[in-house]
Formats: sequence, structure tokens, C-alpha cells
Amino acid sequence: MAIKPSQDVPSILGKFGEELYEQIMKEESPSIKIPLRGKSNVFFDDNEKVIQLGDKFSKRHFLNVAHTKKFMQTVLVASYCRRLVEENKHAGIRELYYALKHTVEGSKENTFDDQAESNPIIEDIETALDILREELNLTADRRGYIYGDIVLKDGEDEFNASKLGRGGWAVPGTVEEIDFLNVNAEYILVIETAAMCDRLIEEKFAQANNALLVACQGQAPRGIRRLINRLHNEKKLPVYVFTDGDPYGWYIYSTIKQGSMNLAYLSRRLGVPDAKFIGMTMDDIEDYELQKVTEKLKDMDKKRINEIMEYEWFKNKDWQEQMKKCLKLGVRIEQQALANKSLEFVAEEYLPQKIENQVFLP
Amino acid sequence: MAIKPSQDVPSILGKFGEELYEQIMKEESPSIKIPLRGKSNVFFDDNEKVIQLGDKFSKRHFLNVAHTKKFMQTVLVASYCRRLVEENKHAGIRELYYALKHTVEGSKENTFDDQAESNPIIEDIETALDILREELNLTADRRGYIYGDIVLKDGEDEFNASKLGRGGWAVPGTVEEIDFLNVNAEYILVIETAAMCDRLIEEKFAQANNALLVACQGQAPRGIRRLINRLHNEKKLPVYVFTDGDPYGWYIYSTIKQGSMNLAYLSRRLGVPDAKFIGMTMDDIEDYELQKVTEKLKDMDKKRINEIMEYEWFKNKDWQEQMKKCLKLGVRIEQQALANKSLEFVAEEYLPQKIENQVFLP
Repeated sequence: MAIKPSQDVPSILGKFGEELYEQIMKEESPSIKIPLRGKSNVFFDDNEKVIQLGDKFSKRHFLNVAHTKKFMQTVLVASYCRRLVEENKHAGIRELYYALKHTVEGSKENTFDDQAESNPIIEDIETALDILREELNLTADRRGYIYGDIVLKDGEDEFNASKLGRGGWAVPGTVEEIDFLNVNAEYILVIETAAMCDRLIEEKFAQANNALLVACQGQAPRGIRRLINRLHNEKKLPVYVFTDGDPYGWYIYSTIKQGSMNLAYLSRRLGVPDAKFIGMTMDDIEDYELQKVTEKLKDMDKKRINEIMEYEWFKNKDWQEQMKKCLKLGVRIEQQALANKSLEFVAEEYLPQKIENQVFLP
Repeated sequence: MAIKPSQDVPSILGKFGEELYEQIMKEESPSIKIPLRGKSNVFFDDNEKVIQLGDKFSKRHFLNVAHTKKFMQTVLVASYCRRLVEENKHAGIRELYYALKHTVEGSKENTFDDQAESNPIIEDIETALDILREELNLTADRRGYIYGDIVLKDGEDEFNASKLGRGGWAVPGTVEEIDFLNVNAEYILVIETAAMCDRLIEEKFAQANNALLVACQGQAPRGIRRLINRLHNEKKLPVYVFTDGDPYGWYIYSTIKQGSMNLAYLSRRLGVPDAKFIGMTMDDIEDYELQKVTEKLKDMDKKRINEIMEYEWFKNKDWQEQMKKCLKLGVRIEQQALANKSLEFVAEEYLPQKIENQVFLP
């Protein structure tokens, strides 16, 4: 998949403003064209293997009373982001909300009454101008860390993420400006839980297998997704995802691989369609005799399985079999359950065997 | 407050086993004495200024049918931890659960049916033997990071937490074995949100003020609490806590300072009774003209304020005034709201002024 070269964001934002200005000069009602992000405009692109936005869009008119406030908000956010980028500053999306919140002069109307108003405006701008939030210098909440033999450069600092004790490097919300100076790894292993990542760090799995370990600590945040995407594309590293064997873990995998429905407009730049799923699977239960350490499915788990079975990208033989088996057995299996064999088992047998024999789900 | 020198954990666990063995040899019913951890045995120690356990305890008898299973579980966990410590391995508490889960030979009884059974057993052992979970080589879930001019040593790795780009060092669940080689800082600033910590990193606050920044990302996890405790005690660094101005932020502070009720037996080794609260306060709203960027209190917020007002350690004039003011104004104020002044404001004015003028809450 082609990676977009980094864009001249200030000039894109500048052009956005100029177009509005020209409309006003021509005495037209200024308007902004914004792609729809609702489910009706989201589809699974079988070609690129990611979730994408369709071509439906809406127009936001300044002189339509129902649109005026949102129009003002859009211009306000765009202008703030331009300033951020020009001043080389970053802001959290909550900071942006507070920074822009004020009473409009000569009225009792607030620019924003709630962050629930400013967040979708940011997504509007991302979609309309095809600029990542991170390129607008807006940072998402961060979580997760990376461990392994990679020399990273961030600002003036250079450091090797395998030389930071058992801690690893805390991945910031924005990784656009990070350089990968030297990567000595054969693949990236993305791990759902910190506990499992820490197990692998203790077992020196990264060293023994030339692996980069990335702990996403639940659903992968944007910083982690973008880091994986960039490492995969720029360093040609395969991505294997290791989660709990349950619908939540499988959905974490699915988001890393083909993106998510509510961020469909980002899939091409956050997703890794080539990613492979290494475990846990329902087959593992039998293959590794883990029957004693499964957990019973709750009703909500079953409901969630039935939901994700219907997703286009899970509609292949392998995954459908897994889901059916899960419902039939009525159990889920966690990564940590492998500790029942021994603490070392996951690092010395489970993962290396699967990778050597290419036992993956698509 | 005195810090306990690191203990000879294997021999404490060994002695625990030997005592049981001797009881059996004397044909007594083996029993274990375990301090009660319920609210009835928790009090605020006005002397040490931390939440402590009282001296009530219960006895667990092997030959009491109601106790037998728990007795077996206690011995099982203690024995597993001894192996961990002797082999210099760590395990997550979920791994421990899975590692020990099996059907007892000659019966249909499982050792554990749920992690909710093994977790309290771990706390029993911590309390009964006065050993930190971390010293038993059990790791808690991790979250949070540290940034600033400190050279840390973990295993063979040495690194400076101010030379890791904007990321900072991801703090592991266990920090017992970490050495502080070189600390060039005047105080520790503990910050509730990652977004605010990242703001301060971007503003080069740590460099300009000789500060160590610790992001706890919500309620501080054990690794972070222990790190702060050790830095405070070993390096004599003052601790300032910076949270949202609401009952949840204030409770985060309170846990860092005097511990929590459900982990009362750990307060002396995780708490920092000398910690001070730097903000956000209700006074800030007026002092910095933030009226426009407050958020309305919800009913549950009010309820929570009324609850924490009753806690012994909040029963001082300053805090009672804050809480009453909060209820009267009916608003809360977030750290990020300071962005309304300017992005730089928090780093260039708010925090330095408060520290210079020692404007703290106790």
C-alpha cells in the first residue's frame, strides 16, 4: 500500500480558508464539503482490504441557520490547527476544546458547550482535507509501549528501545515525527495485555527471536496503530497480533488490520491489511490442552461473537470456524492461560512454533 | 518515615511453611493468622498520616471445613511465590491464577475457580507476612510513565529519562529492583492525565524547573506509587500532585499521599504523607478567571464530594473549604482548562507561581 508523503499541512489549511474567502468575495454563501462518516457511507474495500469511506458527502452552508454554528466551529478549529502547525506546537483534543471555548462577542452564544461538539469537527476536517489529526498537531490519548532492538530518534534524542530495562519506551500520542534509525528485527509482535508483553520481556523473547514487542494495552490507541503502520510500511516488517481468544481480542486484531468503522477514513494510514493473527484461537485449547483454564462465555460475549461474525472481513472460512467453535464450546481463552503450562511456555514453545510453522489466522 | 530494608523473602516464606509443618508434626490443626482488611480494621493513623490496618485478625484453620479450601489456596500461592523469588522470575497475578489452577488429584475440586479467589489470597499473604506483592515477584498491571533528568538502572541497562524523546520511560509494574543512579531534580510533579504531562514535556517544563514528571494516567497504579514513594524517601524529593479539580482528582491525590482503604496494609510503603496538592482547586477558578471553562457537576460528582468530605484525612479547614466551594459553585475544573489562557500558561505561569509561592493544599 502506498504511503502518502508527508503533506504541506499549513498550505492545505490555507487553501481551505482561501476558498471560503473567495466564496464570500463572490457574495456566495460559503460552504464546506464534508464526506459522510456514518455507517451508510462505510464499506469494506475488498481490494485494499481495509474499511473505507464511500463517496457520499454533505455540504455545510454558513447561511443555513441549521449549519451556521457548526460552520463557525469548523473554521475556528481549522484556524487553530494552522496556528499549531505553524508554531510547531501540539495540543490534546481536550486542550483544543478548552482553548477555543469562549462566548462569541456580542452574543450569549458559546463557541462550544461540550467537547462532544469539538471532537466531530476535528474528524470533519481530517476527512474533508484528508489530513491525519496527528498532522494537524492534535494528539490523541496515549497508552502502550514498545520494546526491542530499534534505535528511535525523537527530536534530538536517540535511544534503543531494548536498552530501557524492563520498562520499554512509552509511545506518545503522535509518532509522525519519529525516525527509525536502525531496526534489528524480523517482525513486530503486537500484544493485547501489558502482563503478557512483560512476560515476553522477562523471557528475553525479543532478543531470542529478533522481535519488536508492542503492548497496546487493550484496543490499540492511535499512536500505537500509526507506529505499527509506519514500521510495517517503512521497514517492511511483518505484523503478528497476539490477543486473548475472545471476541474482544479478535476485534483488537481486526482494528489493527483493517481499521474501524468509526475511523474508516483513516484505515489506509493506520491499518495494516497484511497483519496476521497468531493467537489465541479456539484450536489452541485442544492443541495445547488448555481445557482446564478456559473461561465460560457470558451472554454479552456470545452476542458480541454473533455481531463480529457478520463483519465482512471476518467472513472467511477460518474465522467463521473459530467463531462457531467458540460458541459451541461456550468458552474463551486468555493469553495468560498459557501460564498453566509454565511461565516460559509462551516464549519458548507457543509463539516460536506458530511463527516457524506459519500457523496464523488471516 | 522509615523504609524497610529489602527483606529476605524466601526465608520469610520458608519460615511460614516450617511453622505449618511443625504444627502438623505436633498433631495440631495447622493454622494461619491473617490480619483483617475490612473497613472495621482500617483507620487513619494521625501520627504517621497514612491509612493503616488495626490489630484485628482472623485465623484460618486447615481442619475447619469452612477454611480448608482457602487454607490450601494460601499454601499453594505462598509456595508458588517462593519458587518465583528463588528462580528470579516474575508473574502477573492473572498468570499466577492460571498457573495454579488445576483439579485436585483424586477429586473433582479445582484449586481455584476464578481469579476473584486467588487475588485476596495474595493480599492475605502480603498482610500476614508483611511482604509487598512486588517482593513476592508478583507484578501488578502497569500504566504511566516518567520523564525528566534521572538516570535509572534496571538490570544492565542505564538510561536517562530525559533523553527518550517525548515518550518518556514506561514504568513497569514492579520497580523494586530499579536503581536511581543520578537524579538531577528538585521535586517530583505527579500528573493525572497523559495529555497534561505531554503538554509539560512539550513546554520543556522539566528542564526549565528541574522537575521529574510522572504521569499516572488516572488512579496511580502500584508501580507508579512505589516509584514515587522510593524517589521521595531515597532521594528526599518533595512530591507535588497535579490533578483535575474534582473529587476524582482529589482522591487520586489522597491515594498517593496516605494510601487507600482497600490497600491499607501497604500505605507505609506506597504512600507519601508529605505529598502536597498543587491544583486544580476551586480557588483557581477565580484566581485565573476560568469561570467560562468549568464543567457542571453531575449528581454522582456531588455524591462523591459528600463522601470524601467525610474521610478523616480530608477533615481539615483547607480541604473542607474547597469541597464546600465546589458544591456551592456546582462546577468542576479540569487541568486542560488552563489551555483557555494559552497552551504555555500552565508551564510558564500556573505551576511555577504556585511552587514559588508555596500555594499548596495539605
